[in-house]
Amino acid sequence: MADSISRRIAALEDREAIRDLISRYGPLADRGDCVGAAALWTENGIYDVGGYGVHHGRASIQALLEGEAHQGLIAGGAAHVLTMPVIELDGEEATAWTYSCVFRHIQGRFEPYRVAANRWRLARTRAGWRVAERVHRMLDGDQAARLLLALPDT
Amino acid sequence: MADSISRRIAALEDREAIRDLISRYGPLADRGDCVGAAALWTENGIYDVGGYGVHHGRASIQALLEGEAHQGLIAGGAAHVLTMPVIELDGEEATAWTYSCVFRHIQGRFEPYRVAANRWRLARTRAGWRVAERVHRMLDGDQAARLLLALPDT
Amino acid sequence: MADSISRRIAALEDREAIRDLISRYGPLADRGDCVGAAALWTENGIYDVGGYGVHHGRASIQALLEGEAHQGLIAGGAAHVLTMPVIELDGEEATAWTYSCVFRHIQGRFEPYRVAANRWRLARTRAGWRVAERVHRMLDGDQAARLLLALPDT
Repeated sequence: MADSISRRIAALEDREAIRDLISRYGPLADRGDCVGAAALWTENGIYDVGGYGVHHGRASIQALLEGEAHQGLIAGGAAHVLTMPVIELDGEEATAWTYSCVFRHIQGRFEPYRVAANRWRLARTRAGWRVAERVHRMLDGDQAARLLLALPDT
Repeated sequence: MADSISRRIAALEDREAIRDLISRYGPLADRGDCVGAAALWTENGIYDVGGYGVHHGRASIQALLEGEAHQGLIAGGAAHVLTMPVIELDGEEATAWTYSCVFRHIQGRFEPYRVAANRWRLARTRAGWRVAERVHRMLDGDQAARLLLALPDT
Repeated sequence: MADSISRRIAALEDREAIRDLISRYGPLADRGDCVGAAALWTENGIYDVGGYGVHHGRASIQALLEGEAHQGLIAGGAAHVLTMPVIELDGEEATAWTYSCVFRHIQGRFEPYRVAANRWRLARTRAGWRVAERVHRMLDGDQAARLLLALPDT
């Protein structure tokens, strides 16, 4: 009984930790904390951004965020919003699905600049949950984005 | 004590399950898994979409999603985003309130196509929490949407 | 053991309560329940809205929402969407970070009217968690918004 109680609490804590991890990406990216944002991934984690390339490892993800495109975007004003995830726990691993919506400020107003499907592979590390792989596909009619949204049955 | 502990955990699990249920709608709808999306409802569940009709039962909800309007929308690229819900548990039933925002890709850019208030009546079934009734009202100045947002006191 | 179990559950409950508190702002504000929205704050709570002034205490926050600007906005149709927060618990206090996005209906369509960074200081009161301070800064290129997004290390 105590064992089962502990397991149920641990599952709830895992879900909280994964939600927290995903929620941190936006503020870190928009503040320009490129080291902090890259540290959400495992050391060899992958960020597959679709048209923006496949980035292997923290250094590559950090470089992406330090690049002109991202820095220009956040200097003008941007919000990298991630939505409430669907989370599937599987022991030391987990998968989550969210949308991402980047709003940017341009010519005195805001616009939804990028809207994408995201599938996250997560891994429990000694430092807590980290992103092993994030795949991001723009929802612009590309079939790849729709394929990414395949959920397991409840 | 063990009893009260178990009840507290069960309430947390209920909230997680309801969040998960609501979060699944978007990916299922945008992928075009119309059977899967309809299966979030109870067998006789209701989806009252305002201007888009009142749909009774899974078959009717599935037909709505299989219709031309929804299929055209997702073929062009769309994200049915649901926001973090306010949840009120009441034993075998629950109520939740969210916003929904449908972004669509059109003429090379994204736009917030529909923004609405949603009230969800949820029911615990043998298969887990399901939607008994979802009422959706566009936030276009219509009083009906504002009435839907009535929350109980904390 | 029972003690540690109880503490772990309490932390999960605190996170749920804070998420619930923040999620309530939108529906209360958009419905026009100005008393209810102001009651999310502590009696002397602060709402620092950036260009819209610093409001001290519930009466001042209520007056802000009863004012012409907010009332005109919600009469036309608006959604005050708050995103999934990063939450840091610290005993009787907590801090949370979210984005806020106000969509408005104008000239027959929706637009993201205001997109902002928000830092919430929360306090546990006898009536439950309440907002001690909410600081809101538009993400329009202003450095103040980016500074607000400083997260503690995980």
